[in-house]
Amino acid sequence: MSITANDPSRKTWLEIPGDTDFPIQNIPFGVFLTRDDVITIGTRIGDYAIDLGALHQLGYFEGIPLTDDIFLQDTLNDFISDGKKTWRLVRNRIADIFDAKNTKLKDNEDHRNRVLFTLDEIEMQMPVQVGDYTDFYSSKEHATNIGSMFRDPDNALLPNWLHIPVGYHGRSSSIIPSGIPVHRPQGQTKPAESDAPVFGPSQRVDFELEMAFITTDANHLGEPIPVDEAEDYIFGMVLFNDWSARDIQKWEYVPLGPFLAKNFASSISPWIVTMDALEPFRTASPKPEKELLPYLQYKGDKSFDINLEVFLQPEGGEEQSLSKSNFKYLYWNMSQQLAHHTVNGCPVNSGDMMASGTISGSSEDSFGSMLELTWSGSKPIKLKDGSERKFIEDNDTVIMRGFCQNGNSRIGFGEVRSKLLPVYQPKKK
Amino acid sequence: MSITANDPSRKTWLEIPGDTDFPIQNIPFGVFLTRDDVITIGTRIGDYAIDLGALHQLGYFEGIPLTDDIFLQDTLNDFISDGKKTWRLVRNRIADIFDAKNTKLKDNEDHRNRVLFTLDEIEMQMPVQVGDYTDFYSSKEHATNIGSMFRDPDNALLPNWLHIPVGYHGRSSSIIPSGIPVHRPQGQTKPAESDAPVFGPSQRVDFELEMAFITTDANHLGEPIPVDEAEDYIFGMVLFNDWSARDIQKWEYVPLGPFLAKNFASSISPWIVTMDALEPFRTASPKPEKELLPYLQYKGDKSFDINLEVFLQPEGGEEQSLSKSNFKYLYWNMSQQLAHHTVNGCPVNSGDMMASGTISGSSEDSFGSMLELTWSGSKPIKLKDGSERKFIEDNDTVIMRGFCQNGNSRIGFGEVRSKLLPVYQPKKK
Repeated sequence: MSITANDPSRKTWLEIPGDTDFPIQNIPFGVFLTRDDVITIGTRIGDYAIDLGALHQLGYFEGIPLTDDIFLQDTLNDFISDGKKTWRLVRNRIADIFDAKNTKLKDNEDHRNRVLFTLDEIEMQMPVQVGDYTDFYSSKEHATNIGSMFRDPDNALLPNWLHIPVGYHGRSSSIIPSGIPVHRPQGQTKPAESDAPVFGPSQRVDFELEMAFITTDANHLGEPIPVDEAEDYIFGMVLFNDWSARDIQKWEYVPLGPFLAKNFASSISPWIVTMDALEPFRTASPKPEKELLPYLQYKGDKSFDINLEVFLQPEGGEEQSLSKSNFKYLYWNMSQQLAHHTVNGCPVNSGDMMASGTISGSSEDSFGSMLELTWSGSKPIKLKDGSERKFIEDNDTVIMRGFCQNGNSRIGFGEVRSKLLPVYQPKKK
Repeated sequence: MSITANDPSRKTWLEIPGDTDFPIQNIPFGVFLTRDDVITIGTRIGDYAIDLGALHQLGYFEGIPLTDDIFLQDTLNDFISDGKKTWRLVRNRIADIFDAKNTKLKDNEDHRNRVLFTLDEIEMQMPVQVGDYTDFYSSKEHATNIGSMFRDPDNALLPNWLHIPVGYHGRSSSIIPSGIPVHRPQGQTKPAESDAPVFGPSQRVDFELEMAFITTDANHLGEPIPVDEAEDYIFGMVLFNDWSARDIQKWEYVPLGPFLAKNFASSISPWIVTMDALEPFRTASPKPEKELLPYLQYKGDKSFDINLEVFLQPEGGEEQSLSKSNFKYLYWNMSQQLAHHTVNGCPVNSGDMMASGTISGSSEDSFGSMLELTWSGSKPIKLKDGSERKFIEDNDTVIMRGFCQNGNSRIGFGEVRSKLLPVYQPKKK
């Protein structure tokens, strides 16, 4: 089945900005609360949010095998379970409904009023209930930076790194959508000058520039997913800010990995951009430096050319770019990650989320965390307001944006934006 | 509200074995498929499974604030969300319904036929949908054994271990109930004699004797749970076999912790024994060896005296005890684990599962894994059929049992039993 929704010549009858992340060729999926306080599944074209639940009730998806309530849900999990063929039929149909040549909805004011929302009328929610969340560590530049800082610049990569798409399990319950603020975490740290650990607010709160993919039901317990079939089970992608507390991490993480340093929050962009929409931006991953075991060898291009940028906005100030990176820098791609994750038979379900790990490039202005940008605080960043940052300060807002661009053709993710609040103060009882 | 269900003098009108794990003082909660292929929430007394959905429809829970369908669900998550007061009301009522002095249900044959099942008429399911699963590492004896084997016997414990209830995130999707077999996982390992890693079946499949607790909705993002309130949010406990692949673990786990070595399967006993039922077996934890930070200091006894035993049954052979341990050996208790887990504001929800880590005692016959029992394979265990085991072999069944005993009073967990199958063979397409 062809992806007619990707037709670059298609125009929409909706009025949309010329430089939007969400042209009619994008058609992402999300969940939002409407002006009537109803939760629905929707898509976005330009600055319009479109209620797919209402469209379906009005019969616009006739002929596509969908249950009546598939879009009247508070997560996309069931729709994602319907599988790739259905996602494609729905996305193609949405492109058709909003095509400049199609007047059916355009000329029906009543239907339009029920289906279309402006962005200020809605509130984006978590798009999926995340069953399990895995974080990979797939940027060679990031792993090398970390290894150089904390171990040995001459042997920065650990022996397994070039053989395994290293990953670990994270916490689903603290994944939140863009816009939800995050409290500075407290925890145990062990200052170098102290014999015993101390308790208090983290002094080294950081972002990590990542992207994550969302899966459908992929396999049963025991059953591996071959690397060249992995993409069939990937629904789409979001921007992912993996908030981190570096001082807590340092004291806790040996031998079982990061825990409280990571699980206080991870923020995502709320619109899931489908793999179909990203298809025109497919590109090659870096060439493997070691011979890979067969289960990690793949055919064709499995990465995507996605421009990424991180901004910091101090309270009351203007936002300022900290770093520019690209998803294609990643050494390990999503197909390898999913093949590795399941090679032991681990089951992957609809709504599972797998993040890339920090996406750093090779130049200093492309690093994906404050830890790397300030080299563990030794080179503070000067902001336009004259202040300096080693790490993130209270009331700073961190914004990540991402988009693919090819000539005039642009497919974007919007943004993930979140503010760091001071330490949580318990309410008096 | 008193826990009248714990009255040790109470007898039931049901005929039950004298030495059962499930006297009328237990009243655990589980989910099962009935002879009519209906999924329901139930409890167990002796060798009877009791359909709580049917009991509720028949009006036996009148006066307790419960939604009509609370027990007609395929998980306990919503019931657990109802909170401790409701759990206690329901458990006290069940004790009353089956009390030898109460003839209402006893004398109603129609009702009895709708409510009571024998164990061979039902099939136990996962009792909860696990939102997030965390595995702790709370046995000092286990951590010391591992450190002695793989690092340095004189500095076996890492510097953070006596300060932090060390834990890490695990995989929810591969937690399965007793009775479901597990395939031997495949993966990358790095033999000492080889320069490059190799791929193949794990040669060191192991069990880990653990217990896990299940939580209710405990906090919001940002909000810590104080250590002395933690027990209010714990619904109950199960036996937990954390299947492990030691050779895969060794190659993958630095620096982000175990991943594929653990996430192929964890098996649990299907009946959740409530904290109320365990109350008479409350006991002290080992005395802390280091001054604890205030958020980990608690009042009173927070551990439980639960006898644990692991058995191995070779294909066609008889089962044989490998190890006897006790939950009370754990250095860190559940209240400390939950307080630590949330001190940074990490949200904990209904159905989350937190396992203890391997529970080893101080003597060699109380170690909780083959890795420790055979000291990394150097001291194989001799089985009654003459064969030896360094680790678990294909078609071996591992069984864990646990119970509290005080004179004639016994509260047990039943068992978690699972067979290791050979490597998964993909079906021909």
